[in-house]
Amino acid sequence: MKIKVAQFGLGPIGLESLRLAAAKPWAKVVGGIDIDPAKIGRDLGEWTLTRNLRGRTVCRSLDELPAQPDVVLHTAVSRVREAFSQIEPMARRGISVVSSCEELLFPRWREPKLAERLDRVCRASGARVVATGVNPGFVMDVLAVCLTGVCREVRAVHVQRVVNASTRRASLQRKIGSGLAPAVFRRRLQAGQAGHAGLKESLALIAHCLRWKITRLVETGDALVARRDLRTPHVAVSKGQTCGLHQRAEASVRGKVCLTLDLTMCLDAPEPRDAIQIEGDPPLHLVLPGGVAGDEATVAALVNAVPRLLRAPPGLRLMTDLAVPCVA
Amino acid sequence: MKIKVAQFGLGPIGLESLRLAAAKPWAKVVGGIDIDPAKIGRDLGEWTLTRNLRGRTVCRSLDELPAQPDVVLHTAVSRVREAFSQIEPMARRGISVVSSCEELLFPRWREPKLAERLDRVCRASGARVVATGVNPGFVMDVLAVCLTGVCREVRAVHVQRVVNASTRRASLQRKIGSGLAPAVFRRRLQAGQAGHAGLKESLALIAHCLRWKITRLVETGDALVARRDLRTPHVAVSKGQTCGLHQRAEASVRGKVCLTLDLTMCLDAPEPRDAIQIEGDPPLHLVLPGGVAGDEATVAALVNAVPRLLRAPPGLRLMTDLAVPCVA
Repeated sequence: MKIKVAQFGLGPIGLESLRLAAAKPWAKVVGGIDIDPAKIGRDLGEWTLTRNLRGRTVCRSLDELPAQPDVVLHTAVSRVREAFSQIEPMARRGISVVSSCEELLFPRWREPKLAERLDRVCRASGARVVATGVNPGFVMDVLAVCLTGVCREVRAVHVQRVVNASTRRASLQRKIGSGLAPAVFRRRLQAGQAGHAGLKESLALIAHCLRWKITRLVETGDALVARRDLRTPHVAVSKGQTCGLHQRAEASVRGKVCLTLDLTMCLDAPEPRDAIQIEGDPPLHLVLPGGVAGDEATVAALVNAVPRLLRAPPGLRLMTDLAVPCVA
Repeated sequence: MKIKVAQFGLGPIGLESLRLAAAKPWAKVVGGIDIDPAKIGRDLGEWTLTRNLRGRTVCRSLDELPAQPDVVLHTAVSRVREAFSQIEPMARRGISVVSSCEELLFPRWREPKLAERLDRVCRASGARVVATGVNPGFVMDVLAVCLTGVCREVRAVHVQRVVNASTRRASLQRKIGSGLAPAVFRRRLQAGQAGHAGLKESLALIAHCLRWKITRLVETGDALVARRDLRTPHVAVSKGQTCGLHQRAEASVRGKVCLTLDLTMCLDAPEPRDAIQIEGDPPLHLVLPGGVAGDEATVAALVNAVPRLLRAPPGLRLMTDLAVPCVA
């Protein structure tokens, strides 16, 4: 019995998820959903150049799908409130959801009441909901938690991620403020209108797994300024303009900073990597030289989570509740 | 409600597991079991210098424990047949077991029928059984599987572990053949009387998770020879004598070598580390410089698995079936 999958949100990540799901022998794609009128009615096979998606068209809503999916891949929003409003109708019908919504990684952090409600809906209908990705969802949270599994005791967790945006797609190069005046990008970062979403959720997930009560959480963001002219196939940045961002979240437990997440994404970043230090017994140090490629790995994380999610009990789940991650 | 824990096997690893379990606020140690007449009757509190174990004595069998445990920490044997005969009576009573038995990591590899029987016993009684450790159980298998969770596709997995035995306890320095004539130690390795147990099981676990059918599995082991005199607080090795071992397991899938595990444990090993390469999409490279300390981390892995095991459905489980590893 194949798992029936539908895609909600047909942006670049959604289209790639759909393509990957269509390539999995255990999945049968039943269709795609988007609210953009320009996309509705398009043939998914032609659009994605994927033979076994031919004849499936983009629908406006769940009701228009030719069959009820077992799982929806939800790649539409970053904000947890919007995600709840889109996902709850699915969960009410017993449809499980794997979402890329960054804030849904640990939904109780911002929206404990909505999270509790969605959990109740899921338990009543038999649906499961989880959010994942590469970051948040893996390199700055789940992988760090996994490492602590061989520790007798953990005193602090520090994670660094350095992404060389020069090697990444155009949208990431723009997302990090490339070419903007630093003052302009700083204001956007501080207003929460730009930057990486989900850093607080990564931190809250680690703290939850370690049963640590966060007493103080500080997130800061700053623009990085080009020291020379930079050029990629997608953007040109003059010396003195923004060429990336630096974000950092720190959590204190009983007055002591015990969790730090440090994220740099910029053009020409030297030594791109993901790194984790566990201060504990034993202490552990992990490095992924080069780092994990964001979009590609996020699409994989979403699709790979499907079979594991369906083996978990109904409810609103955390990635760390599911079985050990694995390519599906 | 605390989880009632008993220890089966009171060697060095068992005593450390007991001490760690006694330090966890969620666990209540009910006692220890060993078959060695010299140990029976000893006070666990005095023996382990652990205050909250005082008054608990070493028993000969399950029946003599003052209360039925929820979970037994089983640290007694490496061979899966012996483990089955010790664990089955526990599982019949509905007692769950976390075992350090290396071959039990993937019991179907050597003993598919016994594994099926134990699984049936567990399902009937409500018990759960799993085996774990740092190796096998984490660095050469579970961690590699976990990494593939962000891959669209995996073509090959290669793991290397280099342990500098000079910094480790006496028993490991002896286990790797230190001071023996290389010809003698080679014979022991080839007869399966020496060396690291569980390499094939690590490999079989990875293959299982990736749904790869192993068509050929080769394991080789060799003595490493000291090029100069070596001395630790525990052993003295002359030039030309054995100073460690090199073991390697390779699995082929459809005629191609797709999984390799390479283990070196020797005195004065340069650059001790754990490293994983995933050939896939994206390719991934992970390094733990210095590596994960074996015994200390194994004890942690055992105790940390307890709460996760009890949340899994009854049955004979694999580490990769349980939730993401985490310090408990």
